[in-house]
Amino acid sequence: MTHDDTGGDPGGSGGTGGGGALSGAMVIGAERVHGTHGTVHGVDPRTGERLSPAFGLGGAAEAARAAALAADAFPAFRATAPNARAAFLEDIAAGIEAISADLVERVVRETSIVRARVRGELARTTGQLRLFADLVRAGHWAGARIDPALPDRTPLPRPDIRQRRVPLGPVAVFGASNFPLAFSVAGGDTASALAAGCPVVVKAHSAHPGTSELVGTAIQRAVARHGLPEGVFSMVFGAGSDVGVALVTDPHIRAVGFTGSRAGGTALMRAAAARPVPIPVYAEMSSINPVVLLPGALRDGAAELGRQFAESLTTGAGQLCTCPGLVFGVAGADLDAFTDSAATAIAAGQTLPMLGDGIHTAYTEGVARLGGLDHVTQVAAGPVGDDIAAPGRARLFTTTGDAFAAEPAMQQEVFGAASLVVRLEHAGQLGAVLGALEGQLTATVHAAADDGELAAPLLELLEDKVGRIVFNGWPTGVDVGHAMVHGGPYPATSDGRSTSVGTLAIDRFLRPVAYQNVPAGLLPAPVDETNSLGLWRQVDGRLTRD
Amino acid sequence: MTHDDTGGDPGGSGGTGGGGALSGAMVIGAERVHGTHGTVHGVDPRTGERLSPAFGLGGAAEAARAAALAADAFPAFRATAPNARAAFLEDIAAGIEAISADLVERVVRETSIVRARVRGELARTTGQLRLFADLVRAGHWAGARIDPALPDRTPLPRPDIRQRRVPLGPVAVFGASNFPLAFSVAGGDTASALAAGCPVVVKAHSAHPGTSELVGTAIQRAVARHGLPEGVFSMVFGAGSDVGVALVTDPHIRAVGFTGSRAGGTALMRAAAARPVPIPVYAEMSSINPVVLLPGALRDGAAELGRQFAESLTTGAGQLCTCPGLVFGVAGADLDAFTDSAATAIAAGQTLPMLGDGIHTAYTEGVARLGGLDHVTQVAAGPVGDDIAAPGRARLFTTTGDAFAAEPAMQQEVFGAASLVVRLEHAGQLGAVLGALEGQLTATVHAAADDGELAAPLLELLEDKVGRIVFNGWPTGVDVGHAMVHGGPYPATSDGRSTSVGTLAIDRFLRPVAYQNVPAGLLPAPVDETNSLGLWRQVDGRLTRD
Repeated sequence: MTHDDTGGDPGGSGGTGGGGALSGAMVIGAERVHGTHGTVHGVDPRTGERLSPAFGLGGAAEAARAAALAADAFPAFRATAPNARAAFLEDIAAGIEAISADLVERVVRETSIVRARVRGELARTTGQLRLFADLVRAGHWAGARIDPALPDRTPLPRPDIRQRRVPLGPVAVFGASNFPLAFSVAGGDTASALAAGCPVVVKAHSAHPGTSELVGTAIQRAVARHGLPEGVFSMVFGAGSDVGVALVTDPHIRAVGFTGSRAGGTALMRAAAARPVPIPVYAEMSSINPVVLLPGALRDGAAELGRQFAESLTTGAGQLCTCPGLVFGVAGADLDAFTDSAATAIAAGQTLPMLGDGIHTAYTEGVARLGGLDHVTQVAAGPVGDDIAAPGRARLFTTTGDAFAAEPAMQQEVFGAASLVVRLEHAGQLGAVLGALEGQLTATVHAAADDGELAAPLLELLEDKVGRIVFNGWPTGVDVGHAMVHGGPYPATSDGRSTSVGTLAIDRFLRPVAYQNVPAGLLPAPVDETNSLGLWRQVDGRLTRD
Repeated sequence: MTHDDTGGDPGGSGGTGGGGALSGAMVIGAERVHGTHGTVHGVDPRTGERLSPAFGLGGAAEAARAAALAADAFPAFRATAPNARAAFLEDIAAGIEAISADLVERVVRETSIVRARVRGELARTTGQLRLFADLVRAGHWAGARIDPALPDRTPLPRPDIRQRRVPLGPVAVFGASNFPLAFSVAGGDTASALAAGCPVVVKAHSAHPGTSELVGTAIQRAVARHGLPEGVFSMVFGAGSDVGVALVTDPHIRAVGFTGSRAGGTALMRAAAARPVPIPVYAEMSSINPVVLLPGALRDGAAELGRQFAESLTTGAGQLCTCPGLVFGVAGADLDAFTDSAATAIAAGQTLPMLGDGIHTAYTEGVARLGGLDHVTQVAAGPVGDDIAAPGRARLFTTTGDAFAAEPAMQQEVFGAASLVVRLEHAGQLGAVLGALEGQLTATVHAAADDGELAAPLLELLEDKVGRIVFNGWPTGVDVGHAMVHGGPYPATSDGRSTSVGTLAIDRFLRPVAYQNVPAGLLPAPVDETNSLGLWRQVDGRLTRD
């Protein structure tokens, strides 16, 4: 490998500076390193054209070096004051905005995602970084608790005990292909880990290497500008799973954030569980996001629901984790009207390019598999899209409730704009078919006012299955806020106790520590005597700001 | 197996009622079931005497039946109102108090733990149940968050999003041998899981089967009195690891609480990770609880520290998870005075019976292994205790800092009253030896006012290693409150992100769910429009009770 030491010119406007030119290098601490384990190119999915430059792939040595730098950086980074850490996150956001014109163009070239969506995703990414900056300053995440000493308690006095949460340590983040900004190099996993005080090593997704370099170097510049230890952030490229497994099994890495396939996520779970010191893996993997159309809702607006559904299904060629891949309704004229309306909208819609060859091949195979099952009928397809190298042609299938209940393969995810309408024999079948579903990111219920009797037990059932329940809307579009949950029971994620979107995501990278009779002068700020940070704290179990 | 259906007489004062007579049966929902896979007896560790009755061991079928009942009970139990669930926990506490005389005697017979400690542990157990009852009523644990709709937001309106935490589902709890009440059938794992709304299946520890039956039937009666589904609580006996593995791999079980050996805990971790649907395991396993004696503290009171240390070391024959098994100090006259004082106290102390043959054998082997290492010297031993079947004879060893740094076997846990004083060459060695330690439940620092310069960096280092940091005290004695952390990085526990003692323990059995545009009439109480439960909730990220 070759090194371009940029430590002396972190904010420089040289060749790799302002975001225009790309060097094909990884970010290892303060250095830019050209990997020598082969190369990868960005590819324009619309045309199949190979984009410049070549990106040098790293190997186990680069993963180990990045992880070691992260471990070196951890003590100083976790000790940064809330304001300093927040300013660092805000500066990453500003750095991304400063290169936004070049960045948007590169994302469009590498992913063929519609430009307006890329702009929205960029705003979401910078908004997310700023939201975590606000969160760091607010300080709730420290989970401060104080049980004051009770020297006169019998039979034994109580010591002074204080609790706060501390960061886990260096985190390995695996960028997703379908959100090249918001779930990638500076996405939610990176933002929440940095907010918690954890250095980050990103394994960049090979489907958008140029995007990754642009964002990675923006973070690298922010690290240097804030005088933070270089190991706070690194980003490596790697082929296959070698570099990823090297990262996950590196003794310096303490947690993993991943968004991608079920096969990829479960491989990392296994690798993490087999370590001498096992570590948590937060993998967001697989979900078909069931939609339930209750009779009153269908009666009131089947055709309009069909149009809305088709729009949710085909957004981003269906390559969203929350794409509605399964619809339940009671067979009858209203459900027919819904299906007809959706079919018409799909046939009249636009076929978008998929993110790349691999995803397109998997989608084509998945559609063939689903369509080939007994009792499954295709009822709609999007335009052929034969001017596109990897067309994400939407498909709509139907089946019956009995057939669905008998064939588990019908709930296997087909990543892309394919969905299956299950025509239930009667509403009483709902509980059984939903109860047999695997864990999901979302479930959606369309209900009219007079559907309440069906809706209430449904809500209880779905609470036990999914991370987010949507009423009278669609699952696509995940708002980044304080109350959002983008998670859910396995296999939606590896760990349903958390979320990868929203401020609760910081919890993934923290653990509690108790301080017993620690002298006032040594107490960490969140649990100090004067509440110098002005936090809400639990004192004897009661929230107070005193 | 044979069934004694007690469903019709749950509060009865029959043979198995008031706590006096024991039947040798398991608790499977509302039934008492005599297992037919062999028997186990309680044993008086002081004399080796086999105690009546014989307890029938269950097999995989009983584990499966208990887990299926727990799954059946889950929907109704999770839906219980806070007051109802709290009253149930309080009633378990009252039921234990109602049989306390018989219970204390049985614990003493089965464990030979000193009667005063058993009474204290009983009070801790009932206090813990009541603390969780208070917590359930207070409702913070629901983690309620609301991001209100912003219909005018651009470019996209924001939907109404609300978040609360829901119980994971049935939990398997493995009782510990060393706390037959507080970490066993109705211990902290059971209390926190029930508080969260999770049914519990306990695998009782074979070292105190009579204690387990008494407590298990007390819980069974409380379930019946409160009209809860029978599967809210079951308790099985089992030999070896078969029943335990059957529970952990049962598809109905959603989480595991365990306190015991590192071998046992890691076996459960592996079994849980290999399931088709992996589940979290909260195993509290192994810790040697380092104590650091800084120079000023030694100068000010070496002899008194030595006496206190010996008392902490020998409490309960050292069979506490927080027993101080490792001491660091700089070699010199003050450390000699500490060691001499501790050695004198140990030699003059009382040798207590250990909990059983197995633990005594492991302790004897561990002491021989540690004492047989190069550069390790035994400096004290407790009285021989040759009137006791399984004497927990205390031992104190010393070694040098260089030898400790070179021999990882010196930090292997010896469960019992054995400890190793490491005589550092100089204080600068502290960082390296502590940095090389595995994860621990606790670390203790004795510091005088003028030790501050050494103490501050020590605190930062220890925060990254342990779950609780004790200053100028001793690690034994874990106060049950809101701020306590009884946890720590692997191998202290399987999952350093949690605690098994204190109210934060409820977090282990919860996961977040988001509700998007759910109609007001369907919203769960913690996130309803009127805040009917009067909770502190995060609204747009700000805590409020409005």
